[in-house]
Amino acid sequence: MEKEALRKELKVSAIENGTVIDHIPAASVFQVINILNLSAFENQILFGTNLESQKMGKKGIIKVRSKFFASDEINKIALVAPTATLIVIKNFEVVEKKKVSIPDKVEKIVKCFNPNCITNHEDVPTRFQVIDKTDLKLRCHYCAKITAKDSMTFKS
Amino acid sequence: MEKEALRKELKVSAIENGTVIDHIPAASVFQVINILNLSAFENQILFGTNLESQKMGKKGIIKVRSKFFASDEINKIALVAPTATLIVIKNFEVVEKKKVSIPDKVEKIVKCFNPNCITNHEDVPTRFQVIDKTDLKLRCHYCAKITAKDSMTFKS
Repeated sequence: MEKEALRKELKVSAIENGTVIDHIPAASVFQVINILNLSAFENQILFGTNLESQKMGKKGIIKVRSKFFASDEINKIALVAPTATLIVIKNFEVVEKKKVSIPDKVEKIVKCFNPNCITNHEDVPTRFQVIDKTDLKLRCHYCAKITAKDSMTFKS
Repeated sequence: MEKEALRKELKVSAIENGTVIDHIPAASVFQVINILNLSAFENQILFGTNLESQKMGKKGIIKVRSKFFASDEINKIALVAPTATLIVIKNFEVVEKKKVSIPDKVEKIVKCFNPNCITNHEDVPTRFQVIDKTDLKLRCHYCAKITAKDSMTFKS
C-alpha cells in the first residue's frame, strides 16, 4: 500500500502553513528562485520543476513553509512567470488563492537595456515604471529608455 | 487519514527511477544546483532545502527523475557538499548508495584564486589538479598557484 501511494504521479508534498507558488512556467523556475532570493531563506522550501500540467504542459511549483509574502514582494515574479498562482496555506487549508499581477514599479531585479544608462556603470539599483503590462514594457527612471520583454535580462 | 499523512514531516516525494542526492548541507543546495547545471535539465526535478536532519541539523535533498549521473559528473559536487550521498533508484528500489568523493581533477566550475591567471583574463576554462583532498587544495594547470578551500569561488 505504501508502494502504491509512491507510484502516484511525482509530486511535491503538502505544507501545513506557508505559501505555494504554482503554475510557474518550467523554464522560469530558477529565475523565480533568484528573484525571490530563496537561497538566502532559512525556511523549509520544496521545489519541483518539469512537472506534468494539463494546463501548461510543463510547470514548476515552489512551496515555502511558514512564509507569507507581501504583494509587492511576490508580484515581481509576474515578469517571468505571469501564469503563476499564489496560494496561501494555513493549517493545511487554502485560505487565499490568486494570480500574480505585474507590478506598477520594478526595482533592482531587471537590468536597463540602455548600455549607457548610469545603472550599468555605477552601483545604482535600477528603477522602472511599468508602462505596458500586456506587452511588457518598462521605462527607466534614470535614462527614460524603454526595456521591453524581448530585451529584458535579470540581475543575478 | 489523508490529513494525518500530510501532517507527517515535510518531505520530498519518492521517484520511480533516477538519482537522489541526499545529505547536502542546506547552505550548499543552490551551489549544487548550479554545479550540476540542473536549470538546463528537462527531467523532472524535486528539491528540498532546510529540511530537518538528525545527522546534520539542516539538510537539502535533490531528486532527478530518469537521470543517472556519471561519477565524474556527480563528484564535482563534493567540493561544496562533501557529506552528500548519492542514491540510485530503479523501480522505487535503492540499487546503489555511496558517498560522493572529491575528484582528482576539477574543470570549469572553480575560479583560479590568482588574479593574474590567464583563466581570469581570457575565455579559457579553468583546470586544476586536486593536491589535497582532506584540506581541499587545487593546483591550477595554467599558473600553478594553489586555490584552497577558504579562497574558493565558483563560476556561476
